[in-house]
Amino acid sequence: MQTLWEYRYAHRTKSMQGSFIREILKLTQKPDVISFAGGLPAPKVFPVEKFQEAANRTLAERAESALQYGTTEGYLPLREMIVERSARYGLKVNANNVSITSGSQQALDLIGRLFINRGDKIIVENPTYLGALQAWNAYGADYVPVPMDEEGMITTELEKALRTGAKFIYVLPNFQNPSGVTLSLKRRQELVRLADHYGTPIIEDDPYGQIRFEGEHLPPVTVVDSEYRGQNGGTYDGNVIYLSTFSKLLAPGIRIAWAIAAESVIYKLVQAKQGADLHTSSFNQIAVYEVSKNDFIDEHVKVIRATYKERRDAMLEAMEEFFPTEVKWTHPKGGMFLFATLPNDLDAMALFDKAVAQKVAYVPGTVFHPNGDGKNTMRLNFSFPEPDIIREGIARLGKMLKEEMYTK
Amino acid sequence: MQTLWEYRYAHRTKSMQGSFIREILKLTQKPDVISFAGGLPAPKVFPVEKFQEAANRTLAERAESALQYGTTEGYLPLREMIVERSARYGLKVNANNVSITSGSQQALDLIGRLFINRGDKIIVENPTYLGALQAWNAYGADYVPVPMDEEGMITTELEKALRTGAKFIYVLPNFQNPSGVTLSLKRRQELVRLADHYGTPIIEDDPYGQIRFEGEHLPPVTVVDSEYRGQNGGTYDGNVIYLSTFSKLLAPGIRIAWAIAAESVIYKLVQAKQGADLHTSSFNQIAVYEVSKNDFIDEHVKVIRATYKERRDAMLEAMEEFFPTEVKWTHPKGGMFLFATLPNDLDAMALFDKAVAQKVAYVPGTVFHPNGDGKNTMRLNFSFPEPDIIREGIARLGKMLKEEMYTK
Repeated sequence: MQTLWEYRYAHRTKSMQGSFIREILKLTQKPDVISFAGGLPAPKVFPVEKFQEAANRTLAERAESALQYGTTEGYLPLREMIVERSARYGLKVNANNVSITSGSQQALDLIGRLFINRGDKIIVENPTYLGALQAWNAYGADYVPVPMDEEGMITTELEKALRTGAKFIYVLPNFQNPSGVTLSLKRRQELVRLADHYGTPIIEDDPYGQIRFEGEHLPPVTVVDSEYRGQNGGTYDGNVIYLSTFSKLLAPGIRIAWAIAAESVIYKLVQAKQGADLHTSSFNQIAVYEVSKNDFIDEHVKVIRATYKERRDAMLEAMEEFFPTEVKWTHPKGGMFLFATLPNDLDAMALFDKAVAQKVAYVPGTVFHPNGDGKNTMRLNFSFPEPDIIREGIARLGKMLKEEMYTK
Repeated sequence: MQTLWEYRYAHRTKSMQGSFIREILKLTQKPDVISFAGGLPAPKVFPVEKFQEAANRTLAERAESALQYGTTEGYLPLREMIVERSARYGLKVNANNVSITSGSQQALDLIGRLFINRGDKIIVENPTYLGALQAWNAYGADYVPVPMDEEGMITTELEKALRTGAKFIYVLPNFQNPSGVTLSLKRRQELVRLADHYGTPIIEDDPYGQIRFEGEHLPPVTVVDSEYRGQNGGTYDGNVIYLSTFSKLLAPGIRIAWAIAAESVIYKLVQAKQGADLHTSSFNQIAVYEVSKNDFIDEHVKVIRATYKERRDAMLEAMEEFFPTEVKWTHPKGGMFLFATLPNDLDAMALFDKAVAQKVAYVPGTVFHPNGDGKNTMRLNFSFPEPDIIREGIARLGKMLKEEMYTK
């Protein structure tokens, strides 16, 4: 029987989709399937003891604030810590430029709510983060995908995209999800110059920036933009909205992220957030502040880097050993994902069931391409499985691919 | 200097507003102002020790789940506990009828996202909950306000409203925010009959249902509807979406609430929530489960009732003593608010600054009336201030009102 609600969905509900990844994750949660499909941090890097101390301290010393309603923009000491840490990366802002969000997913949703009219064009890297597409589909976004190479978004292609009159550019410059690719410094400068030339603002989504295993840290696009405009610090008034999160630095289950933007944008974002969930958990904000203070993150991120580097290396080595030579893949210098490209005639979506039958799983890369490209690609996560499991899983996947390619 | 974002706001952004209450709260946070303006639970009823135990147990026994990404619909043991507790109030549902939300505000937002097209008419009590108006303004809702009396929404007026072709009815049946009024059993039955007659679904928002000081518990509208339709338990497939929260039973800072609806509606709600914030904090859900289990809430709610009853009584007694006889007010049997009506020629908004000058604050009632009525009304919160503070604040307010009424 259908309830009366069935007949009453709004237009926008039609453009909402459940995540394909979420459906996949259900398929792959059988304990004997080795899954490279998820995007989970390694549980062994969760700072459990620090959270225990922080939870105890928070409830012993600040229970009234931690358990009470809080302000929509978030806990001031946490926002001030974000200001201080951002300055180390050249990002000169003050607390009025910072709002706490319930995960970066909420920031993406609030950005869609504030800026996207049905049919607006959004420039994205191709492939791009699925969660952004999901958030913005609900607001009726159209996408202008820009192809990438090993230096990230190709800026000559970006210029063509900018001439479509897009509303903003969305970029994940560091160890991008799903490709693992990092936008080079030259491309960052070119992105900023082109965006300024066309008067198009930028969203910089940077969940993994600090999880670099090798090579030099590159300045955030926000910093490149500030330098381009000659900003000297104080209040940030630039054209970039910068997003980052504690999900990858501490733990995702705690749902604490932040947005940095011009004060006028933060004001609107806070208005929108108030209607969306009033505020992010006071307890979690104070606990994250307590965990992070005294530069704990700087120590902790070394553990994360070492753990994920070992896993990335295990994956790259196993791919060299077990994958057909016709398959190509990215070599990320950080983050949690790499991206493989099969020969053109192979369809990673069609092969997915065969892989699961062999007890191994990935995400078919086409879901990250808003134009339906990438049928012969797959995303592989290396942060969650242990190195020996990675080796076994890649061996299974390589065997399946070889059977598919050489025995037909 | 304006950033490029200024020129790019979506149409819907125009209909978003910051909360007037939020602005008021800033004005009234000076320590010497007695504020009846907020809607905060009393900190003394926060079960701090239980949260300490629960946080420790959660991190000692379930850290991997508590700190990791979780499912969008929420932690299954918590949803099952909600099923079990709902059954005691006659609400026969299963876990697939339940989704956890990041506060009830998020449920209101997700309902707007799923169901409200610009210009859709929503039937609301007049006055109604401001947070719902804020959430739904962003989706372009229009409102059909139905007048209330001491038994709640007047059902002959409701019938006229139903003939406008409204999309749904929004009702807060117990100790309504802001009026403090409870919908009588007869009116609940009439609401259900009329809604069924016109084929119009209902949202029942019930944050305070268990915080009753006196009189008999009334069945939720959802239960009245199930009985009307002859539902026998199992999966709930009715036409009501029921919302409630742990904010008033345990603590609002933890941001855990729930929605109950037909499975098909929950499925869509979960899709929408995935785009909005992926999921609600795993840690908080597990901790709330740990706090609540073994029927702790049943014991704890007695403390809340006793505390708030004492404060309501203090407020009612002081109003009898200090308020001009021309002022009328509601006598809520539970919850956190009462509502006062001044003589017609007084404007509570215009008097607000005078009240703050006298170091006392309230919320002008007009903000709860989507049609701009209620200029001579005010909402007074009695859950937060201590009884002697309540007496002093009401004395100040009575003095101000008498000066205004008798010396001009």
